[in-house]
Amino acid sequence: CSKEIEGVDKNIWVDFTQLAADYQVVNLGQGFPDFSPPSYIQEAFCKAVNGGCSMHQYTRAFGHPPLVSILAKFFGRVVGHEIDAFEDILVTVGAYQALFCTFQALVDEDDEVIIVEPFFDCYQPMVKMAGGKGVYVPLRPVSSVFSVADWVLSSEELASKFNPRTKAIVINTPNNPLGKVYKREELQVIADLCIKHDVVCISDEVYEWLTYDGAKHVKIASLPGMWERTVTIGSGGKSFSATGWKVGWAIGAGPIVKHLKTVHQNSVYHCATAAQEAVAQGFQREYELFGTPDSYFLQLPEMLHHKRKKLATCLESVGLQPVLPEGGYFMIADISSLNVDLNDPSTQDEPHDYRFVKWLIKEKGLATIPVSAFYSPEHRKDFENYIRFCFVKEDSTLNAAEDILRKWSDGK
Amino acid sequence: CSKEIEGVDKNIWVDFTQLAADYQVVNLGQGFPDFSPPSYIQEAFCKAVNGGCSMHQYTRAFGHPPLVSILAKFFGRVVGHEIDAFEDILVTVGAYQALFCTFQALVDEDDEVIIVEPFFDCYQPMVKMAGGKGVYVPLRPVSSVFSVADWVLSSEELASKFNPRTKAIVINTPNNPLGKVYKREELQVIADLCIKHDVVCISDEVYEWLTYDGAKHVKIASLPGMWERTVTIGSGGKSFSATGWKVGWAIGAGPIVKHLKTVHQNSVYHCATAAQEAVAQGFQREYELFGTPDSYFLQLPEMLHHKRKKLATCLESVGLQPVLPEGGYFMIADISSLNVDLNDPSTQDEPHDYRFVKWLIKEKGLATIPVSAFYSPEHRKDFENYIRFCFVKEDSTLNAAEDILRKWSDGK
Repeated sequence: CSKEIEGVDKNIWVDFTQLAADYQVVNLGQGFPDFSPPSYIQEAFCKAVNGGCSMHQYTRAFGHPPLVSILAKFFGRVVGHEIDAFEDILVTVGAYQALFCTFQALVDEDDEVIIVEPFFDCYQPMVKMAGGKGVYVPLRPVSSVFSVADWVLSSEELASKFNPRTKAIVINTPNNPLGKVYKREELQVIADLCIKHDVVCISDEVYEWLTYDGAKHVKIASLPGMWERTVTIGSGGKSFSATGWKVGWAIGAGPIVKHLKTVHQNSVYHCATAAQEAVAQGFQREYELFGTPDSYFLQLPEMLHHKRKKLATCLESVGLQPVLPEGGYFMIADISSLNVDLNDPSTQDEPHDYRFVKWLIKEKGLATIPVSAFYSPEHRKDFENYIRFCFVKEDSTLNAAEDILRKWSDGK
Repeated sequence: CSKEIEGVDKNIWVDFTQLAADYQVVNLGQGFPDFSPPSYIQEAFCKAVNGGCSMHQYTRAFGHPPLVSILAKFFGRVVGHEIDAFEDILVTVGAYQALFCTFQALVDEDDEVIIVEPFFDCYQPMVKMAGGKGVYVPLRPVSSVFSVADWVLSSEELASKFNPRTKAIVINTPNNPLGKVYKREELQVIADLCIKHDVVCISDEVYEWLTYDGAKHVKIASLPGMWERTVTIGSGGKSFSATGWKVGWAIGAGPIVKHLKTVHQNSVYHCATAAQEAVAQGFQREYELFGTPDSYFLQLPEMLHHKRKKLATCLESVGLQPVLPEGGYFMIADISSLNVDLNDPSTQDEPHDYRFVKWLIKEKGLATIPVSAFYSPEHRKDFENYIRFCFVKEDSTLNAAEDILRKWSDGK
């Protein structure tokens, strides 16, 4: 194989999704809803599929015109900056491919990319494939670890990572796996450093609608001087509970997005037409209903607010200490107080959380994800005592998980 | 931007598709049907979209299980070699992304990739992005140029291109834009060289069902010793006249496909679920009907056989000499005998065929594609006298094109 892909063949999703499938478990692992998208957008998809020949053929390479038009209108209003539908937006095969295009387009051999930990795991191999080097700064719990608001960046530590080789910084707000929602002041610290060092900010905001208890999602691209140097990544799949549609986007200033388009046109070229049409319809509706109770972007977090509470209560009751997220659809929990005999010799060389998660799958039939997978090798050791639960699941799934945990707890 | 994407920002499809849209022309340019997929597969897509929550969420990263299972069964029979659904197949975002994954996975800095000209244009920038170097061998017309069967490779010239740096050769059969269908003997020459020099063959076979006048598509992977060293690229969009679905695949020996999967999991990860389900249903049906008159893989070439004849007759009647294709859905025509005053100063530095195509769009309202775009810079000069017509179009579209050409011819 080629050198770029040496060392990037391991993938936690491939491994743990397979394991979960093999054991037919209750699955709070991978981050996708086990329910359907809202009916109006399913209908829009159906209508598109039945919408005649053009819906079955190629559309514009960089994004279906109705979709880029409404995304420009919608996010122009949110970010407070005019967005050119045809210059400033690239529609991609999910947010995942938007991230790939961004790293490939902007990162060169030996460039450094600052990655805030814990991070969505793909940032690391994607930076490596582009020839760059990840430089890691962890969020650290400063006081009690019961709320994720207490996990913060040290400004000094962060500043110390910027140098002339720094090409970009990647943030993820709301964060996966923590559920941290960056406050404006925190984003301002990052923005100041980006401006000072002429660094691009890649802001992964796929969970942007999902905030709880008054936490407010702020787009770093909306801060003064940041539009010109931010690539904001979004997801139709996460926005509309339709992860299998694979419609995402990157939004930023034309002179940056131009390079993402070059990667796109030489790797994927078009995205699927009918799904783009349906997402366009969805955003059209959300544009009109924005801020009203009928908006799905309000309804989904409201629904998830309850599921988050349900899961947290359940975890506490069985002695797993959850870190309550402010956003997103994941919750991490501390497993250090648990006394479990992980004597499976096949996992003995693995980190503690990996061993625990495999044990939970094989012995108890419940799938979660080890949190150290979201850390660089150098910091992984410090975060082996957490596992991640996904709560964007039917109540019946959450109940089934609760049953498993309770039975186990009672049996201890 | 990063170095890998320097010099790969130009793209003929972006440019000419935009131009065709701006002038609202009759479009025989880009290669997609202007009719719908067969109704049974549209229905399968609808059914998938209405098929409940799992159809809207992620499926297996390397291919939806029902799709890889039927592809393994279907192509195992065609190629005469057992195919492991989970090891030997990667489902991709169209054949385009299959090509990208293949080049990224196999080609390293300074590796050479032999590309037979004329070639589907993306091979060149994809090889460059992977760090490799394209080495070009043209098909040359040996006698009359009226049939594409007369366009052949020189065995000596081809052999002279293989050296210790050669990593792969890319062929495309049926070929785009020529419509050449490689004969078994021609493939054997290539296979022998691949085996002798331990080179991988990347065989782009997206038009595999479309052959005419008794020409027979042969898979190079079916020749002795070639399964182990061939990556065969296929397309659901081309197979089922649904280019906008973006479902393609790469099939080959597991130890090679493994590396393609690594690229895939770090660039796109999943492909859209419902479209994969529909393509799976389509292949299931085709598997059962294979070789019978109800098979779409027979019906489509039959339909296209008539369209090809219709277009050829029309081109001849207006003095454009067509090169009759044996396969695919394109036809090139010689424009050297035409005396057109191309006095547009905005195109004066461009190749003759580019100027002619732009003139035809702007002045006559008919879009085609310049054939020199399918050649390397070093050979482009020798092939500036052809343009490519796409004939996978409604008869009404072909009639509209004929009207334009006839009016022009009458006016000369």
